[in-house]
Amino acid sequence: MQPTPHCNEGCEESREESRAEGVLFLVSLGPGAHDQMTLAAREAVRRAQVIIGYRGYIEQIRPQLQPWQTVVASPIGQELARAEEAVNRAAAGARVALVSSGDVGIYAMAGPVYDVLRARDWQGDGPRVEVLPGVSAIQAAAARLGAPLSHDFCTISLSDLLTPWPVIQRRIQAAAWGDFVIGFYNPRSRGRDWQLRWAVDCLRQYRSPHTPVAIARQVTRPDEAIQVTTLGQVDVAQVDMFTLVLVGNSQSYLLAGHLATPRGYRDLTAVGNLPGDPGSR
Amino acid sequence: MQPTPHCNEGCEESREESRAEGVLFLVSLGPGAHDQMTLAAREAVRRAQVIIGYRGYIEQIRPQLQPWQTVVASPIGQELARAEEAVNRAAAGARVALVSSGDVGIYAMAGPVYDVLRARDWQGDGPRVEVLPGVSAIQAAAARLGAPLSHDFCTISLSDLLTPWPVIQRRIQAAAWGDFVIGFYNPRSRGRDWQLRWAVDCLRQYRSPHTPVAIARQVTRPDEAIQVTTLGQVDVAQVDMFTLVLVGNSQSYLLAGHLATPRGYRDLTAVGNLPGDPGSR
Repeated sequence: MQPTPHCNEGCEESREESRAEGVLFLVSLGPGAHDQMTLAAREAVRRAQVIIGYRGYIEQIRPQLQPWQTVVASPIGQELARAEEAVNRAAAGARVALVSSGDVGIYAMAGPVYDVLRARDWQGDGPRVEVLPGVSAIQAAAARLGAPLSHDFCTISLSDLLTPWPVIQRRIQAAAWGDFVIGFYNPRSRGRDWQLRWAVDCLRQYRSPHTPVAIARQVTRPDEAIQVTTLGQVDVAQVDMFTLVLVGNSQSYLLAGHLATPRGYRDLTAVGNLPGDPGSR
Repeated sequence: MQPTPHCNEGCEESREESRAEGVLFLVSLGPGAHDQMTLAAREAVRRAQVIIGYRGYIEQIRPQLQPWQTVVASPIGQELARAEEAVNRAAAGARVALVSSGDVGIYAMAGPVYDVLRARDWQGDGPRVEVLPGVSAIQAAAARLGAPLSHDFCTISLSDLLTPWPVIQRRIQAAAWGDFVIGFYNPRSRGRDWQLRWAVDCLRQYRSPHTPVAIARQVTRPDEAIQVTTLGQVDVAQVDMFTLVLVGNSQSYLLAGHLATPRGYRDLTAVGNLPGDPGSR
């Protein structure tokens, strides 16, 4: 794998190079607040000739954009079309930034871009693709909560648009049985309102009703709202598509309205307290 | 939960406030390269009176430090002592930045700090604690690889220092059965050399030998080395404690030396192809 240059200021060599060949930057904007972007992501936005993204994300960086930049703001959905356009413009020689909220690699635009590249039998250049990682929703929520991700965790999207529901069910059972801290992405929308209830019911079979749960909505945005509750008391009706739901493991605890998970297990012999196999249920 | 102010330049109110009461910033430095920090993390380092961290991480930010800042560089290990010192200094009124590589909330210093706060029956202030998230090793590796985290993933630490090995075994089985993309942290060290072999042998029971695997060492640092291989061919002897090992799910694919995971499942009825319960093995 060829290492790709960073976007340090004064990196003239890389600047010349990309003018010549066209490059697609997949840029993570972080959870919302401007200061949650990385320096490299900000620099990639600054230096792009073309900036492509869902119009909500374009608004998020509007103050950073400059008059000479071409901005292509798309409606929501149409991820493959947006990925196609970004790949086409970069292949034609432009310096393109395709922007996503959170981390572009986590349930965001890196996936559709690689789907497009795969269909074209991409050989690693024409265009060159560089991914700039960033802070995903689970990390932004965790930061506000305290230290919930201090032990093994997983992320599960509850959207069954592209994934069969039985696969999602199995993931939930596996995560529950494995005592992972869990972050649910896309937990609930108007047309998809029963999956989170199923997940909570499943988790209640494996974990104590006192297990800490957080409902984190629009973290770092002006309408941020975070609620800390328990598995026994969580009200799924409060959850919408702008929310991340975080469920602690068997060791997680609440402290002054915050949520943390110890680095290890207090009782190193307490494995017998973990739940039985999913196959036995 | 009380929302905490951002570190925007010119945020004088927050500056005054923290002078008065003492605050502990838990700061994520990202994977290594300076430009992989968030703007908020850089600002927290700039404005801290006291900077505490493992000496390797202090070296990582040495060029950003200023003569008026107190720097406390610790040897490796001693996480609880470092956390104690940071909490004490902030409780005494200082503006403290405790720095960690990667995301401070993921297998890093946020956990020990909350352990210390819990033991003191912390009430949410004295000191106030603010966590600044960042790019963790799995994200940095994913960015270099392409798009491996475009579907559900989990992180598993193979260190059994604080976690009983049977818990770790169960996590590996659960992740394998649930078809999660997996990032192994702390995969192997001189004194702990058989756990990764066990994990690979376990995964081979659940996934095809063609499943893509990446060995990502020191990502974004000068001695970065990334190797892409398969579950059938991976050589665990090449892995050390500076490495993250990433294993794809049943749908992940290699493309021009890169690794990606589709956003969904190609065959929405192919659930029968997933492996049987861990209890049936």
